[in-house]
Amino acid sequence: MPDPTFGYVTPENLALFTDRYELTMMQGYVETGHEPAATFSLFFRKLPPDRGYLVAAGLEQIIACVEDLTFGQRAIAHLEAQGFHEGFIDRLAGFDFSGDVRAVPEGTVVFPNEPLVEVTAPIFEAQLLETLFINQVGFPSLVATKAARMRDVIDRAGDGQSLVDFGSRRAHGTDAGMKAARAAYVGGFDGTSNEAAAEAFGVPAYGTMAHSWIQSFPTEREAFEAFVDVYGEESILLVDTYDTVEGTALAMAVAEERGVDVVGVRLDSGDLVELSKEASAIVEDASIGADDGADDGPGVFVPSGVDEYFLAEFLAAGGVATGFGPGTSLTTSDDAPKLDAVYKLVAVQQDGALAPSMKLSAGKVTYPGEKSVRRIEEGGEYVRDVLGRRREGGPGRELLVDVYRDGELVYDLPSLDDVRDRRAREVRRLPEAVREIEEPSTYPIEVSDGLERLTRELQEELVAQVGD
Amino acid sequence: MPDPTFGYVTPENLALFTDRYELTMMQGYVETGHEPAATFSLFFRKLPPDRGYLVAAGLEQIIACVEDLTFGQRAIAHLEAQGFHEGFIDRLAGFDFSGDVRAVPEGTVVFPNEPLVEVTAPIFEAQLLETLFINQVGFPSLVATKAARMRDVIDRAGDGQSLVDFGSRRAHGTDAGMKAARAAYVGGFDGTSNEAAAEAFGVPAYGTMAHSWIQSFPTEREAFEAFVDVYGEESILLVDTYDTVEGTALAMAVAEERGVDVVGVRLDSGDLVELSKEASAIVEDASIGADDGADDGPGVFVPSGVDEYFLAEFLAAGGVATGFGPGTSLTTSDDAPKLDAVYKLVAVQQDGALAPSMKLSAGKVTYPGEKSVRRIEEGGEYVRDVLGRRREGGPGRELLVDVYRDGELVYDLPSLDDVRDRRAREVRRLPEAVREIEEPSTYPIEVSDGLERLTRELQEELVAQVGD
Repeated sequence: MPDPTFGYVTPENLALFTDRYELTMMQGYVETGHEPAATFSLFFRKLPPDRGYLVAAGLEQIIACVEDLTFGQRAIAHLEAQGFHEGFIDRLAGFDFSGDVRAVPEGTVVFPNEPLVEVTAPIFEAQLLETLFINQVGFPSLVATKAARMRDVIDRAGDGQSLVDFGSRRAHGTDAGMKAARAAYVGGFDGTSNEAAAEAFGVPAYGTMAHSWIQSFPTEREAFEAFVDVYGEESILLVDTYDTVEGTALAMAVAEERGVDVVGVRLDSGDLVELSKEASAIVEDASIGADDGADDGPGVFVPSGVDEYFLAEFLAAGGVATGFGPGTSLTTSDDAPKLDAVYKLVAVQQDGALAPSMKLSAGKVTYPGEKSVRRIEEGGEYVRDVLGRRREGGPGRELLVDVYRDGELVYDLPSLDDVRDRRAREVRRLPEAVREIEEPSTYPIEVSDGLERLTRELQEELVAQVGD
Repeated sequence: MPDPTFGYVTPENLALFTDRYELTMMQGYVETGHEPAATFSLFFRKLPPDRGYLVAAGLEQIIACVEDLTFGQRAIAHLEAQGFHEGFIDRLAGFDFSGDVRAVPEGTVVFPNEPLVEVTAPIFEAQLLETLFINQVGFPSLVATKAARMRDVIDRAGDGQSLVDFGSRRAHGTDAGMKAARAAYVGGFDGTSNEAAAEAFGVPAYGTMAHSWIQSFPTEREAFEAFVDVYGEESILLVDTYDTVEGTALAMAVAEERGVDVVGVRLDSGDLVELSKEASAIVEDASIGADDGADDGPGVFVPSGVDEYFLAEFLAAGGVATGFGPGTSLTTSDDAPKLDAVYKLVAVQQDGALAPSMKLSAGKVTYPGEKSVRRIEEGGEYVRDVLGRRREGGPGRELLVDVYRDGELVYDLPSLDDVRDRRAREVRRLPEAVREIEEPSTYPIEVSDGLERLTRELQEELVAQVGD
């Protein structure tokens, strides 16, 4: 029988969720007595394909991780068995984050080279956070972005249709299913099918029936009748098990016979644009819900194979639906399953003060030093961001806020609804061309004079050193 | 401060990791007294792009889930608050899986329409497992496959180079990082950088240093010296922070001065084929390790941006490396991040016996009834599989084995090394053309006469019913 701890990540082993080299370096820092303060910047170098923006998400998870990050008995026993040294392990046993974290609030739109998170701490502490922080921020941001794109297509071409995350089964494990449900809500979804995510995050849960319900009864009629008898006006009936059009007619017949104003029908296969029109016509003709001023009668729900590209085409082709249930495409961010987020050392203590640092690298620049990101708004629209040095000042709104100061959490966590509202405001203020779901325009990011100069100076210094 | 239970999936909330509709249907089954036994089959309809086979993985996780699947206080409180009914919740509180599970052992290669798992149980129980089972099997199988493809490229064109999973940071959450590390090992990797996965699964952990180590010291030389002083002959030095070729020379100089036979150097950027050749030449010329019969002197490690396509090109172009560290491409299965695995009702109890069931669906067939999968081998090579009805018999080896019988675990879990060996044997027996990493040939899957006939009969019956 498998070990009951099998594969779960919990506060018991969370601190081990790091790459071996972080621990190797940390032991090295301790044993060489080399423990400067350092600043690490978490950012991405380029947007995933077809993305004009990224919706930042995951900060709440990061905070939860920092709060839970202790090396308990189980972690210590493992590290001892792996041959790490006693002095180092003693230090880990006392691990308690004492540094500063600045970050962009969840729901903010962000762009390449802008820090999502900056950590300034003794290098021993800051080094440990790399793997976990990238892991906790990258995926939620991808899903929040995917969700925001779908919501934005509906905002621009639709009719306020509902969006529900139906993708837990195809997510990359349970944690991905949980994070995706939360990130989808941030991105503008109305809820999730995932009951565990509903419980953990307070997100509404939705769901009706699968084909197995229909098939488990001798006939489709009996399946519909049984469901309506249990769920009454909450029922959504799945109508495509045998024939979508006939199934829709049967669903309405059952609803009428029972006198129940059902929520609607769900289509799951075939030519969804055409079938949605036919099903909508049948549903509209049904004599239920029509004389009830409180609603518009039964709806048509389309759960399968939905992403932002499908939604745009479906709406453009005159498809008729009350709601959608994106699944796999959402929870795997299937056309962009990876974000090249990195966590780079940008400053290190020298002679008592933090000094900007950089490496030379073919074809890519990591801007040195602690950062500022300022967003310039004109006439209710974002026009550009300025990436600068921390405390450099300038026009616009600073995006990075204090989260930890000297190890103390100083950030008031917004509610998930507040985060969702922020995302809505942020996306709406982006230029239309940046919001396109294919070949979006590039949002302008300026590098401040101060940062430009610093980068050039450090580059010249490094080239000169290597040339020595 | 976030709730300490924030987002973790543990045995406390695992049973809630399901789609709302599963619970809705289960409540419906209870309240209508409709509780036949049923068989559900977990399979995929088509292979991901460029895949000629899939390596099955995740069965051990499935077993761990079944063992942990209980509705405790936390889950019950949530379901009460969501308005589920008392009688149903009482049933959940006593949930204890009582059915049968048959499955393909981990490490087996599988093909479209072949069940990876079949569950026969009271429909109330079998329905609950859908979301979790698909979630637990799909992703590990994708990663095991990706890993197996990389290992196979090296087996066919390489020199036994090591492969280590370096991708936890880009995995979709912590669970994905854990599952990917395990699946990579199944697929033929030598280990992982993920310390938590090493602890949970007993997989070797590897890792050396990041650029932050180098940058945190005033000079690259001081960084190398400090590392070698701590780690001696275990050292792998990262040489591309400023200039890869000069960095390699410096690393060897430091190793020689200290008289330490380091493991090697690590390249991380630039033209890796050319740089690997130059670095290898420098490393070979170094006067360390040469007269030590026990090893071949320092190696060259290439960790970044590696996938099976890169490996094939790198080796074809004469790149020289001792080991590789695939990351993002592995842990997100980036060119194929989704498997269209489904869990379909294929039989339902009628008049006391299980009767095969199917639905009509445009463009796709779900074969009805409990299955058999038989693999035919000739001259040490797999030549075809036969998908048939359970107990139909026929030539070849049956792939589906008993895992649970009447709720009892009857399967002896193999060690992870045994699973890894199985994968090696299985992949090696596939026709070469099926193993190609681009445009592989289709492995032949026959449908048995018995299953063909049953499918036709049920289709005709359903068409006749719909026509009524």
